[in-house]
Amino acid sequence: MNKKKRIVIALGGNALGNTLPEQMAAVKITAKAIVDLIEEGCEVVVAHGNGPQVGMINNAMAALSREDVNQPNTPLSVCVAMSQAYIGYDLQNALREELYNRNIYDIPVATMITQIRVDSDDPAFQNPSKPIGHFMDAAQAKIAEEKYGYIMKEDSGRGYRRVVASPKPAEIIEIGAIRSLVDSGQLVIACGGGGIPVTRQGNHLKGASAVIDKDFASCLLAEELDADFLIILTAVEKAAIRFGKPDVKWLDDLSVEEAKAYIQEGHFAPGSMLPKVEAAVRFASSKEGRTSLITLLEKAKDGILGKTGTRIHQ
Amino acid sequence: MNKKKRIVIALGGNALGNTLPEQMAAVKITAKAIVDLIEEGCEVVVAHGNGPQVGMINNAMAALSREDVNQPNTPLSVCVAMSQAYIGYDLQNALREELYNRNIYDIPVATMITQIRVDSDDPAFQNPSKPIGHFMDAAQAKIAEEKYGYIMKEDSGRGYRRVVASPKPAEIIEIGAIRSLVDSGQLVIACGGGGIPVTRQGNHLKGASAVIDKDFASCLLAEELDADFLIILTAVEKAAIRFGKPDVKWLDDLSVEEAKAYIQEGHFAPGSMLPKVEAAVRFASSKEGRTSLITLLEKAKDGILGKTGTRIHQ
Repeated sequence: MNKKKRIVIALGGNALGNTLPEQMAAVKITAKAIVDLIEEGCEVVVAHGNGPQVGMINNAMAALSREDVNQPNTPLSVCVAMSQAYIGYDLQNALREELYNRNIYDIPVATMITQIRVDSDDPAFQNPSKPIGHFMDAAQAKIAEEKYGYIMKEDSGRGYRRVVASPKPAEIIEIGAIRSLVDSGQLVIACGGGGIPVTRQGNHLKGASAVIDKDFASCLLAEELDADFLIILTAVEKAAIRFGKPDVKWLDDLSVEEAKAYIQEGHFAPGSMLPKVEAAVRFASSKEGRTSLITLLEKAKDGILGKTGTRIHQ
Repeated sequence: MNKKKRIVIALGGNALGNTLPEQMAAVKITAKAIVDLIEEGCEVVVAHGNGPQVGMINNAMAALSREDVNQPNTPLSVCVAMSQAYIGYDLQNALREELYNRNIYDIPVATMITQIRVDSDDPAFQNPSKPIGHFMDAAQAKIAEEKYGYIMKEDSGRGYRRVVASPKPAEIIEIGAIRSLVDSGQLVIACGGGGIPVTRQGNHLKGASAVIDKDFASCLLAEELDADFLIILTAVEKAAIRFGKPDVKWLDDLSVEEAKAYIQEGHFAPGSMLPKVEAAVRFASSKEGRTSLITLLEKAKDGILGKTGTRIHQ
């Protein structure tokens, strides 16, 4: 590449493992793929999900509340904040170590605690649908509703789970700090878990019982940082139409219009590939020259070089 | 003040409350005192302790391990990382709100996950003495020793507590990011809980079972940022000699030499005022023109204006 490309990469929370030992193994693999991009001359900003991790932290804080009556229940927003540090600490050290292993000493790594404002009148709040935490039986679910005000929903015959809203990200509160660090050559980890969701109440930012989709959060981050690429990682090398059917067609290169048409035709699974393609389309639509790439972590470098993955652009 | 003074202020973890509702009330009071300093024309960097908070998080993670066999015990360093987000999220929002309430809109607030390197051959590791977490009976202590490798000590007849080393801070890993943000006019929260303690193993940074004294960490931060003042907050307005005796003498203004002599004479309580005076002396000694101030949170502004507190300088 002739010019330094700025990339925002969105890692999946599931790809970071369900326990700390799993996470410490996973971040090593992740770090290799990210430093591959840096060695290609890219400037990388890392965002990530936190599904399993925020669930685990939520469970830990709930377990403490049961043991210690003085410890009230911990709001989801605080658990998201804690998950940013829980993941960021390991991830930044794995990145630092991989950079040093390749004799790259001039790119410091930093994790920013990041809040993202959502609109309190986002329609998602009227229809909480994102399941979080573990399964409960009907009696436990009733207690959770009465004691904590949770909204519980029966989940495909497997029991009850708490559901929360998944509103769209409206504003990254700490974008100034993130931009300042990125512009000064730091490798920044930000918007962990989709960001800590907050709503504005006058001068106060209030934590919201919500989770922000990390791909939409990464899209907003990429727009705000005027990135060239948004890389959305998935469990498949490319997005596809007629996925799982004999006449499946893997998608290499799509215009925004083509991608929108496939979305309309219902080719992508809600809660899985659909939000990824939607976020990819949104970023590519935001300005000419911006490209979204959907692919596997280990194919990210080849994807940036144009060899694989699904690319969406104007 | 004619010139913008740079201040590092070290908040006590105990002053931040034992539960989240207590913390949310405490950070409002803290924010007022800090924004008072900003209104006086100072540039402020905030460090803080985490005693009660990291204990609570440690207990929560241990409670989860007991309930879920798949969740291994969480190392202390990871709990410190989580405490930085748990406190920083609330503290940064209280600061932002207080700034906005006073119509100050041009000072963004940011929390940095901060690691501090300690030397693995620091003599503190040979004699772990800092108690953390809750009290246990002899049987529980034995299990903790065998299962987790904890070092347990009997504590004044009240039961057993885990003890860890309290090594001296050697290097702030994220100092470049912190400096970059401070220099660009951000109000930065860093080195929470004395920083996440790590030791260097080749290119790897390994979490240490240790806690770094937050006053020594703040001293190193103040030195690295070339601050004019280090404010160490305590529960008394001034340090004293012959404290608690009829002929107590409250200290207003001390040279480094006078302070060192009082330390030698044993006037300050170990684990309480002694490390604060030691950190204050260290900062004041590090360069001409640097002043340490020991006082109450609500007297910080008056202290900077020279009206109260104990000032130590060359």
